[in-house]
Amino acid sequence: MTIKHEIAHVAHVELLTPEPEKSLWFFTRVMGLTENGSEGDSVYLRTWDDYEHHTLKLTAHGTSGIRRTGLRASSQEALDRRVKAIEDAGLGVGWRDGDPGLGPTYVFRDPDGHELEIYWESEWYQAPPELAPSLKNQAQAYPALGVCVRRLDHVNFLAADVEPSTDFLRDVLGGHPTEQIRLDDGAIAGRWVTFTNKSYDLVYTRDWTRSHGRLHHIAFATDTREDILRAADIFLDKGVFIETGPHKHAIQQTFFLYVYEPGGNRVELCNPCARLILAPDWKTITWTEAERAKGQAWGLKTIESFHTHGTPPVDS
Amino acid sequence: MTIKHEIAHVAHVELLTPEPEKSLWFFTRVMGLTENGSEGDSVYLRTWDDYEHHTLKLTAHGTSGIRRTGLRASSQEALDRRVKAIEDAGLGVGWRDGDPGLGPTYVFRDPDGHELEIYWESEWYQAPPELAPSLKNQAQAYPALGVCVRRLDHVNFLAADVEPSTDFLRDVLGGHPTEQIRLDDGAIAGRWVTFTNKSYDLVYTRDWTRSHGRLHHIAFATDTREDILRAADIFLDKGVFIETGPHKHAIQQTFFLYVYEPGGNRVELCNPCARLILAPDWKTITWTEAERAKGQAWGLKTIESFHTHGTPPVDS
Amino acid sequence: MTIKHEIAHVAHVELLTPEPEKSLWFFTRVMGLTENGSEGDSVYLRTWDDYEHHTLKLTAHGTSGIRRTGLRASSQEALDRRVKAIEDAGLGVGWRDGDPGLGPTYVFRDPDGHELEIYWESEWYQAPPELAPSLKNQAQAYPALGVCVRRLDHVNFLAADVEPSTDFLRDVLGGHPTEQIRLDDGAIAGRWVTFTNKSYDLVYTRDWTRSHGRLHHIAFATDTREDILRAADIFLDKGVFIETGPHKHAIQQTFFLYVYEPGGNRVELCNPCARLILAPDWKTITWTEAERAKGQAWGLKTIESFHTHGTPPVDS
Amino acid sequence: MTIKHEIAHVAHVELLTPEPEKSLWFFTRVMGLTENGSEGDSVYLRTWDDYEHHTLKLTAHGTSGIRRTGLRASSQEALDRRVKAIEDAGLGVGWRDGDPGLGPTYVFRDPDGHELEIYWESEWYQAPPELAPSLKNQAQAYPALGVCVRRLDHVNFLAADVEPSTDFLRDVLGGHPTEQIRLDDGAIAGRWVTFTNKSYDLVYTRDWTRSHGRLHHIAFATDTREDILRAADIFLDKGVFIETGPHKHAIQQTFFLYVYEPGGNRVELCNPCARLILAPDWKTITWTEAERAKGQAWGLKTIESFHTHGTPPVDS
Repeated sequence: MTIKHEIAHVAHVELLTPEPEKSLWFFTRVMGLTENGSEGDSVYLRTWDDYEHHTLKLTAHGTSGIRRTGLRASSQEALDRRVKAIEDAGLGVGWRDGDPGLGPTYVFRDPDGHELEIYWESEWYQAPPELAPSLKNQAQAYPALGVCVRRLDHVNFLAADVEPSTDFLRDVLGGHPTEQIRLDDGAIAGRWVTFTNKSYDLVYTRDWTRSHGRLHHIAFATDTREDILRAADIFLDKGVFIETGPHKHAIQQTFFLYVYEPGGNRVELCNPCARLILAPDWKTITWTEAERAKGQAWGLKTIESFHTHGTPPVDS
Repeated sequence: MTIKHEIAHVAHVELLTPEPEKSLWFFTRVMGLTENGSEGDSVYLRTWDDYEHHTLKLTAHGTSGIRRTGLRASSQEALDRRVKAIEDAGLGVGWRDGDPGLGPTYVFRDPDGHELEIYWESEWYQAPPELAPSLKNQAQAYPALGVCVRRLDHVNFLAADVEPSTDFLRDVLGGHPTEQIRLDDGAIAGRWVTFTNKSYDLVYTRDWTRSHGRLHHIAFATDTREDILRAADIFLDKGVFIETGPHKHAIQQTFFLYVYEPGGNRVELCNPCARLILAPDWKTITWTEAERAKGQAWGLKTIESFHTHGTPPVDS
Repeated sequence: MTIKHEIAHVAHVELLTPEPEKSLWFFTRVMGLTENGSEGDSVYLRTWDDYEHHTLKLTAHGTSGIRRTGLRASSQEALDRRVKAIEDAGLGVGWRDGDPGLGPTYVFRDPDGHELEIYWESEWYQAPPELAPSLKNQAQAYPALGVCVRRLDHVNFLAADVEPSTDFLRDVLGGHPTEQIRLDDGAIAGRWVTFTNKSYDLVYTRDWTRSHGRLHHIAFATDTREDILRAADIFLDKGVFIETGPHKHAIQQTFFLYVYEPGGNRVELCNPCARLILAPDWKTITWTEAERAKGQAWGLKTIESFHTHGTPPVDS
Repeated sequence: MTIKHEIAHVAHVELLTPEPEKSLWFFTRVMGLTENGSEGDSVYLRTWDDYEHHTLKLTAHGTSGIRRTGLRASSQEALDRRVKAIEDAGLGVGWRDGDPGLGPTYVFRDPDGHELEIYWESEWYQAPPELAPSLKNQAQAYPALGVCVRRLDHVNFLAADVEPSTDFLRDVLGGHPTEQIRLDDGAIAGRWVTFTNKSYDLVYTRDWTRSHGRLHHIAFATDTREDILRAADIFLDKGVFIETGPHKHAIQQTFFLYVYEPGGNRVELCNPCARLILAPDWKTITWTEAERAKGQAWGLKTIESFHTHGTPPVDS
């Protein structure tokens, strides 16, 4: 039987940075996230539309990369069922106390080795007076500083092999692959998986180094494409390295812009316009090697560093 | 136990018009929908992002209003469960052959008397060569004519009493009320209900005439707010009556523009920016009479005709 | 003979505020202007696209209103010719030392009594390192704070009688009236005058109190209409009073949003899309009282306070 | 003495196409221009914001390229003065009857050999009822078909040597060079010249084939950047070749998209946001070879075909 709707959404990520002060500057002053506490080597940051305690846990570390990705279950029962399924799959790590604002959380790994957690209990964020929004259906006032991204949109992992991890998402967590790239030799070079009506929430693309547990990028959604054009000017004037874009992906049709934050991690700004996957029987779209070679939607060639830059860096 | 995810999405509506030629001109030449067959007094029309046969069935009739609203079930099993629940609620009408492209469909009424249908089988649209899109993850080429709305977004019914119909949506169909207006006397004047990650799919607002089965408006989503600003110019030059907007609703924060199509039905263009309801435990936001009196998000007073114009017209 | 191109552009204004700290907060933290020095009761502020020393001189004062509006001549010869013409018209006040960054300036009054100045010498702004732009064809880095208006766009004066002052603009300064409102009794209720390819630079509308020298509003241009929609959210969350908009004027077709800064002065955000007046023989468009009664382009009624709120306030 | 403001604006171009039917389809159905008569092998086309008879004269021809570029003088006296100056420069061809809607026109050549004309008399366009705009300050209703470009923005000629032709523009016609590229060997590889407050109206870039009289591209302005993003989707679905973009030029900061019309001529869509040159003493910005090698504003590499594709094609 198909598992569906057990994961409510991708909720937060822990990002590692060897340049914690500069990365903090990037996420707060350039991207417009708001600090919401700190603990040890970590600072908790939130986008203005996040109803939970934090969106990003930024942790000082010897190198870059992603540590833990948090998925919120859609209910206590869904959490219990998924934990059992993960344990049955032999990929569980165990229950932990959640970070601030989060209840008990179950830590596990995908087949490639990325660390994830799943939890149900979550305190809804209450903005302090100086951050209180004017409209009661909004978590926090619009920061009006920097890019002002709305929310974490998706995480794109690198994996030595895409299929085991995306099969795990589908079979154990109930993800649905909406699009994928199949190379001429049959291998899956990338797969986009959704838990929601967004067209994707987690993406796996093949790690050219055959390393495990690495990150291609994390992505934040903006309200408009104009926000991304405006962001490009901000990045330019702030000295943030723009890797490629703005342009529109052929795959998933996302309007995108990629930069590297000062710690070296690739960060995407993305906007899907009003595109959603509402069809309950959406068939996975498969792009061939030839189709992918055409580049992005409007003809931009896919940048070479997409296939050479991941975090943490490894000898390749 | 909470019912969830049994309805995949609001799929199509049948709209009645006493001015069929002018209404057809409006939907095809001004809004940019594409004809996909006709039958008797009805023409089938589709938005370019619709994966199904049609989005709108436009039917010549003695007066205006909405006839049938189609909901797609999320599976055959969900359909069977919902039909049983509807029958248990005593609101079923019965199985019918579906319109072109649709399998067997179960017709029923909400407590206020609006006709709805629920179905599972649906043929995916195959664009003829002249309408074929360049990107394979898109249903149809972008029409580049008129407003070019992307999809049907929601339906806003009028009801003599809001609560019975929205309770029915919640208890029998699994809808979740995300926002509502509660008057000082305790009555619910409006309630916004979602089946998806969109913040609403069906809305009920109170009919000031206490009539049954009427329509406040149907709404189409555009890709951007700029599309709505551009649409306002198009409506102006095409002589389409603009009722109010563009502006941003406080409730649901939707950017909106309302017009009357030539048959008299109110049609909304809407764009939510990137707003989605991802929280599985979203608590219904309640707006008071005083809050609602403040008008729209940026201060526009709610237009009086919102409380006097519904279709079909009735003596009030 | 027609005088043309003697005034290069409207360059800066001195605005008076009884709430200097709050007004400064508004212009720097909400609108995104940058401080560039202060002197006595005045602070000099600049928009990021201004090539001169300052765009706005904000002066603490007992009440609100506009003090002096600066026009830059298009050459030293044009300055000399205009000063002579102003003196011939009997409206000269005399030569003064310019404010910081400006050379000798000739102060004069329009027939209604507003103070203006005209000058030629102007030091080009050199951004300090922390404000240096990445592109050398730009005056200052994009501030990425608040609304980030690009430039002063126009000034709209109130005048007891519109015609004498706008005739003066035309006959003495070489302004061209592009649009006007003529009431049924023949009186000109408003006139839009340009010195450039912008469709207007200075506007006079009739003061309902028949006072002299008052201000209807000053306007700043944004890069896009989306910037104005975004600004509306910023104003909402910052508690800035939104008077009307966003919407599109029928006259001049400007996309607009009006707010009151904390000192009480009305401030407009405006965006003309790509509209310019390139025709050298543009005939003044005259709107009748009936046409003006239709409201704004997309049907918004002109707000009543447009005819009751000016600065400084007077007993009316 | 500096000549200024003698040319009001670049008014129209005659474009040659070996594929007249396909080019006509491109300009009317894809770009959204409107036919306004035809004559022999030529069709007259207009953008909706043009106050004159036509914007583009599209002429069937054995090959592609640009024939004549029309400049409107700012008065009869300016026309007489400029004709005399052109004759003095030895570059006059002679007076001709103007095309439909235009009075007597003086034809001449720039030093590189491109044909131009200058004229004063011009009939203002009167829209027929079916194309009448709703707002009286607009030339024609918004077409709501295809891209809907607003106006001709600029022409970019290729020239064997840039300096003679741009010096001619400056010395004989009163153009002002706002930006230029100077190679390490001192040669000017490109120069952007304005007659208005637009930052450029005519551009010359060096022809790598050292041919004379060729075209790099003609450019049309859109109202918004979103119009260009939307246009990219339209081009994609209509099968129009997209050469590069959308992106932002470093030089002049224009947001751009380049396509080839079916006759082979390069066509740009451009939008400058609200950027204007208001400074009467704007100093020409000079970009070095190293600066130009950095590519476009947000890092896109300048496409190689910018230096290999011009019209008509020549053996190089």
